[in-house]
This record gives sequence, C-alpha cells and structure tokens, in this order.
Amino acid sequence: MIKHLIIVGVGLLGSSIGLATKKRRLAETVIGIGRRRETLDAALRRGAVDVVSTELGVLAEIDDGIAFICTPVGVIISDAERIAAVNGNLLLSDVGSTKANICRELQKLRFVGGHPIAGSEKSGPEFGDENLFQNRLTVLTPTDSSRSEDVERLRFFWESLGSQVLCTEPERHDAILAKTSHLPHAVAATLASLLTDAERPFCGAGFADTTRIAAGPATVWTDIFIENRLQLLAALDEFGDRLESLKAALQNGDENAVTRFLESAQR
Amino acid sequence: MIKHLIIVGVGLLGSSIGLATKKRRLAETVIGIGRRRETLDAALRRGAVDVVSTELGVLAEIDDGIAFICTPVGVIISDAERIAAVNGNLLLSDVGSTKANICRELQKLRFVGGHPIAGSEKSGPEFGDENLFQNRLTVLTPTDSSRSEDVERLRFFWESLGSQVLCTEPERHDAILAKTSHLPHAVAATLASLLTDAERPFCGAGFADTTRIAAGPATVWTDIFIENRLQLLAALDEFGDRLESLKAALQNGDENAVTRFLESAQR
Repeated sequence: MIKHLIIVGVGLLGSSIGLATKKRRLAETVIGIGRRRETLDAALRRGAVDVVSTELGVLAEIDDGIAFICTPVGVIISDAERIAAVNGNLLLSDVGSTKANICRELQKLRFVGGHPIAGSEKSGPEFGDENLFQNRLTVLTPTDSSRSEDVERLRFFWESLGSQVLCTEPERHDAILAKTSHLPHAVAATLASLLTDAERPFCGAGFADTTRIAAGPATVWTDIFIENRLQLLAALDEFGDRLESLKAALQNGDENAVTRFLESAQR
Repeated sequence: MIKHLIIVGVGLLGSSIGLATKKRRLAETVIGIGRRRETLDAALRRGAVDVVSTELGVLAEIDDGIAFICTPVGVIISDAERIAAVNGNLLLSDVGSTKANICRELQKLRFVGGHPIAGSEKSGPEFGDENLFQNRLTVLTPTDSSRSEDVERLRFFWESLGSQVLCTEPERHDAILAKTSHLPHAVAATLASLLTDAERPFCGAGFADTTRIAAGPATVWTDIFIENRLQLLAALDEFGDRLESLKAALQNGDENAVTRFLESAQR
C-alpha cells in the first residue's frame, strides 16, 4: 500500500495512473499536481485523484510517497528538480517516452525512470482509462545510482496495474523506441501531411490506421523528437535505406524482389 | 434487379459482394467462378454465392448479367478477355486497386473499371462481410468507349450496397491511390520489415496500427505495386522529400520547424 501517490500532470497518462490506482486500492491518497486549475478539476471530476493542488508546497510534509511525473518530456527534468527541492524523501519516477537525457540528469536524485508503452492519440484527463496499462509493457530504466528497493517498488506498482515490467538501460530504451514508436510517428505524420483536400475522399481504412498516431499532440511529440533526435535520425536513415531497396526493385520492375520485401514485412 | 451476378474470384472482396447482394436481394442468382474448388466451396458454405463453377463455359448462355472480376490486378485483364471470349454480352467490371492499365487494355470490351475502397488485411471468403461497402467510396473509371447506361447500372449497384460512388479518369485514380493507399502500404511494410525480434516487445498500439496493412497478402500487393509502379515511385519521391525536411529540422534541432511539421500532419 502506497501512502501518498502523487501525480504531477493529470493528462491522459497521469489520470489513467490515478484511476488504475484507485480502482485497485493501491494508495491511501492520490494527489494531483498541475499548473492549470481546470485540468486538475477535470481529473477530480473524473475520479482520477482525491485532492489537487497547483502548489508543490503541499508535498513538503509527506514522509512516504511516490511521485509520478507525467508532464511532457521537455519539462520532466525541471519538474523533478523542483519536487526534490521541496521534499527529498519522495521516490520520483516518470512516464516519459524518452529516457537517456532524463535519467542522466536525474541520477543525482532519488529517481528511477519509467515508460509505460500505452497511450493514445487523445489527450486530457477526460480520456483517462483505468485499464490503460493492462497487458501493456512498462519499461523501467534504473541507473547505477538507483536503489534496488525503489526499482522493486515501482515494478510491483506497475505489475499491480496489470502491466508487464522490463528493465533496461536508458540508452537502449531510446534506441529501440526510436524504431518502434518515434519513427512510426514521423512516418505517419509525413504521410498525413502529404494529403491534399481533393485526395482525402479516396482514403480507406488503411490510410486511417497508418496515420492515426499523427493526430497526437504536436508539442508533446516535438519534445520527444528533439530529446531523442540522434536515435530518431539513425532510425530514419535505416528506414530510408530500406525504402530505397524497395524503390530499386520497383524501378527495375523486379516482381520477385518486391514480393520478398513484402513477405518479410508480412512476417 | 440483376438476373445473373457473376463473381470471378470469391476471396474477401468477391464474397463480400455476394453476401451484400444476397442480403439486399439485388440479384436472382449469384454465380461464383474460381480456379480452386475449396475456395468456391468455402464461399458457398459462407452463403456468398448460389452456385459455383471452375469453368467459364457455364457463362456462355447467359443473356443478361454483370460479371465482377475480383481476382488480383495482375490477372484481371486476361480474366476479362477470357470471359468476353465466352460471352460478349456480359457487362464486365472489376474491383482492382489499379485502373489505368486495366481500363486501357479492356476498352475494346464491354467493361467499366471499378474500385471499392474497402477491404482488410485479411483474405479469403471466410472473411466476407455483407456490410463491407457500407459508407465506403467506390470509384468508377469509365473511358470514352464506356456506355453510359452501363456506368449508371454499376453506380446504382454500388449505391445499393451502401457505397458512395465517384467517377474519375483511370489515370487520376491511380495517381491518387498511389498516395492514399499504395504509398502507405509501402511505408508500413518498410517499418514492419525493420523490426528485430528483440525490439518486438517494445511495440505499442501505435506501431501495430501503423503497420497493420503490411500483413496484407504479399502477392496481391506485389501486383498492385508493379502495375502502378510509376505513380508509386512518384509518391515515394514526394514522401522522401517531405521526410528530408523533417530530418533537416531534427539535425538543426529546430523545435519550431518540427512543431510546424507535426501540426500540419495533425490537421
């Protein structure tokens, strides 16, 4: 049982953590922290948190608590530093889509990076979902300075929400997610941005599926792309090379090569 | 009311036409033609057709009928020619994903090209769906040699299945579908083929959606790619240029440019 579960940033992911925790009665009190009053009120109405505040000061006296920082990746480091300045006893974690920079900067604090691979192109507490993490993977990225009991506590927490948990190095996480998440987003956004109004009626379910994630919030994804740009650029190069091999097969009218390409993708 | 509705190739699309027609009682008899006995039997069991045959000869005596050729795009031309040789009175149409070559080669026959923009990555009559065309777009691509009463008959047919119908030139169809369908498939296949076994557990719903269509049958898509390769290559070039502009923004760490790119995609 967690005495105080603190959620900083009560958007889709933050409020889903709150809803999932409360449903499973894993915490005595769930505290929502945020900058915007109306988002906090929406999370409160949704039942995702028990109490809310726009002030970090309310965390000063808490002796036992876990704080999940669920703000965009560009501000996670500064949010963690501000919380630690108010209360150094809290176990800090996050749900950011990139890990290397964040974990390097925050290893001086009691922080263990995390990333539940779950979400949607929606945003805001109204889309919070108590089952969002069920049967999903959550990656934890401890560093040499992480306490093993903190890592185990977080593992237990995410498993209690129905998630599988896997630990890996922050850099490996970012290299893999560049390929499995950031590259697909870049590609989906590129496809979507090519479409003209006249072409729109001709789109079927395939186009809709392939570009669905491009509807995700642009500023959130800008942060992710900028944070992980070296790995994303490497993934884009790998993607470009592979696409060139398909283009060569098409230019040569090489049916067998096209089929081999599509068969390997199908598998 | 159609006296004889003939479906050549009773896969996903063919059997969906049969099911949709029979549900709405639009034809007296639905005849399934195919090469493989077991596929025909599956379509018969599914209730998609009334009678089946592996021989085109059964079509010789039919005085009033529409034949939809639902075979892969690479064999539509030869299938249409073989049917016309058996019975020149039938109105021929197809459901192929490319139109320019097919319509050019078949304008000597009583043929009007068609393409219902519906389907799935599944294949085979067991996945036939009587509502597959509901609220979808069907494109008809008449040429100068098409009879207007044939075009109107096909329009009425597809509208009766719940589809919207739009007429355009075969070449324009192929240029647009290269961008809205064939390019997304090429890109999805490329993404899927990059993935290693070790990276697979890290894939979320975004990756799954973006690459879903890559599970489509490789030989069917090889035909489409080869038939429409010039338009697809042009679409791939346009895609490549756009992706380069994103790469440049990332290389320069230009957050504003990345956000503008993602915002235009989001819209």
